Amino acid sequence: MAIMDARPGRVRPAPENFLTDEQIAAVKDGRRDFLRKAFLTASAVMAGPTVARAAAAGDPAILELPPWSTSLGQSVAANPYGMPSKFERALARRESPGLTRVGGSSVAFTPLQGLFGIITPSGLHFERHHQGWHDVDPSQHRLMVNGLVKTNAVFTMDDIMRLPSVSRIHFIECGANTGMEWGNVAVPTVQYSHGMLSCSEFTGVALKELLDMCGADYRKGRFVLAEGADGSSMTRTIPMELIESGEVLVAYGMNGEMLRPENGYPLRLVVPGVQGVSWVKWLRRIEVGDKPWASKDEAVHYIDLMPDGQHRQYTSLQECKSVITTPSGGQLLLDKGFYNVSGMAWSGRGKVTRVDVSTDGGINWRQARLETPVLSKAVTRFNIDWVWDGKPAILQSRAVDETGYVQPSYGQLRKVRGTKSIYHNNAIQSWKVAESGEVSNVQVL
Amino acid sequence: MAIMDARPGRVRPAPENFLTDEQIAAVKDGRRDFLRKAFLTASAVMAGPTVARAAAAGDPAILELPPWSTSLGQSVAANPYGMPSKFERALARRESPGLTRVGGSSVAFTPLQGLFGIITPSGLHFERHHQGWHDVDPSQHRLMVNGLVKTNAVFTMDDIMRLPSVSRIHFIECGANTGMEWGNVAVPTVQYSHGMLSCSEFTGVALKELLDMCGADYRKGRFVLAEGADGSSMTRTIPMELIESGEVLVAYGMNGEMLRPENGYPLRLVVPGVQGVSWVKWLRRIEVGDKPWASKDEAVHYIDLMPDGQHRQYTSLQECKSVITTPSGGQLLLDKGFYNVSGMAWSGRGKVTRVDVSTDGGINWRQARLETPVLSKAVTRFNIDWVWDGKPAILQSRAVDETGYVQPSYGQLRKVRGTKSIYHNNAIQSWKVAESGEVSNVQVL
Repeated sequence: MAIMDARPGRVRPAPENFLTDEQIAAVKDGRRDFLRKAFLTASAVMAGPTVARAAAAGDPAILELPPWSTSLGQSVAANPYGMPSKFERALARRESPGLTRVGGSSVAFTPLQGLFGIITPSGLHFERHHQGWHDVDPSQHRLMVNGLVKTNAVFTMDDIMRLPSVSRIHFIECGANTGMEWGNVAVPTVQYSHGMLSCSEFTGVALKELLDMCGADYRKGRFVLAEGADGSSMTRTIPMELIESGEVLVAYGMNGEMLRPENGYPLRLVVPGVQGVSWVKWLRRIEVGDKPWASKDEAVHYIDLMPDGQHRQYTSLQECKSVITTPSGGQLLLDKGFYNVSGMAWSGRGKVTRVDVSTDGGINWRQARLETPVLSKAVTRFNIDWVWDGKPAILQSRAVDETGYVQPSYGQLRKVRGTKSIYHNNAIQSWKVAESGEVSNVQVL
Repeated sequence: MAIMDARPGRVRPAPENFLTDEQIAAVKDGRRDFLRKAFLTASAVMAGPTVARAAAAGDPAILELPPWSTSLGQSVAANPYGMPSKFERALARRESPGLTRVGGSSVAFTPLQGLFGIITPSGLHFERHHQGWHDVDPSQHRLMVNGLVKTNAVFTMDDIMRLPSVSRIHFIECGANTGMEWGNVAVPTVQYSHGMLSCSEFTGVALKELLDMCGADYRKGRFVLAEGADGSSMTRTIPMELIESGEVLVAYGMNGEMLRPENGYPLRLVVPGVQGVSWVKWLRRIEVGDKPWASKDEAVHYIDLMPDGQHRQYTSLQECKSVITTPSGGQLLLDKGFYNVSGMAWSGRGKVTRVDVSTDGGINWRQARLETPVLSKAVTRFNIDWVWDGKPAILQSRAVDETGYVQPSYGQLRKVRGTKSIYHNNAIQSWKVAESGEVSNVQVL
């Protein structure tokens, strides 16, 4: 069996996990055998499994036990609100230094290399602010609806939270995600190349419900302006078709609890399939109008520079995309053998129907397993078996959505979009595995 | 439209949220009009929506703005691992004082009254320990497989994390959940009546995969012992059929990240549909055997005292159950009018297919909306509209699963089970709404 044959193979699940700097250095120096021996010795001798070791050797005696097996541990509710293990401290959101002048208008990336499944822990949700974040007092917060409506209205949080509620799992991706990769290989790890992506269960009220209550003019009012309460007064135009579908939510809940402050507490817009900038945080106003507003972040930013020098505007939908998160850039394969290759796929147009994985730079492809649930406009987790023969390899994933759209290669994408864009890069990502086991970011056209 | 007619109606989403003690006292004293006026005044005058108010009044001038709209906020990654708003601090796991002598062998309940959707935030996952919890060092932790297998084996965390990985969303419920309610109304809020329930996305390796690797004897070996590494050495028997189905996982991931220390970091068993005690935390050993072990927590605890004085043993499956979480005990309806009634339903036998809600103590029932996704052996969120006429009401929910099983009333359950049990109480929960708007726990047979 391939898995058993491959017992010595190991992958660091995240750059931060489980291996000491000395162990990593040993592999990089070519001392892989040394490391393997160290691991096997550790498996047999280290403190944890002494009971297991004794029993496995046919000896029922308990020789020694780790402290957590011989003492009364901490009380329930020692932490009324729990936190991750101290051994996971390095798995954190990280700012890309120098990306902007002020940290309040910067980005903190989600460490996709250490995540599993489809739900992003709220504490690791990526951040992109335009004027920093505040912990807004919900008893002070209001949402106004005005414009082409019969009745202007101001809602308190209590008003909104008693209305018909819906809960749905959706991804949110910044339009600039993978934006540094248009022309060249810019960043070493998947945290920085794809980490402006999160997926959560959102709870709130359909915006359509609020517009109905206010008597919106759906004939003339084909656009809505969403405005945030932060210092940037972020404003974005949302087409009325999206709202009429019932998918756009005025959300207060994320992953079972109230939104986090840095993600718009107490109220944000949820616009499934559309780039994150339209999911206006600290939402304070909805205006119904008859044409797009061409606000600053629609006219100057979040536009696509095309090869002919023109800019595309109002391209807000996030096309089908995927990325392998394990193994990925900065990780290290400790030996040849069996690996579980795992990644995430998503589409702003609906469900992901298929993900193929190549380990030879796109020559051969195999179909990956999709974990359940596969949901519309949500992240889908894929997994596939791989036995690494110790030779250089290039890992790629290619997703297909329910419209039949196939995630493009860099070559295909650049034919249409050129290399000068910032936004909406959904090209196939390539990770090179060197003979040393080191994984790095490369581009394959 | 019912919703518009009902504008003044409000419900506190959790006892801890949004209302001052003075406001609650005003309602309890019958000064509801005073409170409503205070709220309407607040809506029109308070600091937050001044821009909105001005604009709504046809005045484009910005009169005054809250501080979060006029200043640079905090930087991205100000918290590398984020936390809830300071305004949500009261929404926490809570121990039931005096339930056990030592906090390390007690329970901390999940605040269901303040949660949305189906995902339980990991920081609020309920806790039930038998000897306290430790933050176990993953580099020291081992899992042994022994018993009726060809090859005994000891796995490191690295060994396990490179194996084929699966991710699935499942509920976990302590067998003793709602245990204090068998004979009478024992606790005031849904946190204490139903809060030993959580639902998360788990990631790990199918236990079947590990047993295959070790050459388990599936003919003789019809049972598996799971043993934890904490001081209680918790041991539970798992029938091999469950493992052969592929559903039982050796899990390291929960809601996208590594398990939390108090939930078994770095490794726990996931046994979908089965009571929480079998989801052995800090899992250190799996033994394959030919009969059940009748361990302490199978022979003395987690057994059901029947009306004839006999005990039922090995009743580990969690039958179909539901509960309304909003409104629920301890909450307060501030006025008559429209409310969104929301709750959770689940079944250890598969998917929930239907939830009916009564507002008159079980005389009339209406079918609730089920939020997506509806998953097997997972929590399903239901919602239903309700216009409260201000008269006393009794709210109930009744779930049906895909086997056709209907959640029983207390009368039906007691006919079979009597009133002396601790475990496996899945009766219909009733919340009484008094004319004052106060919601309390009552039993309806």
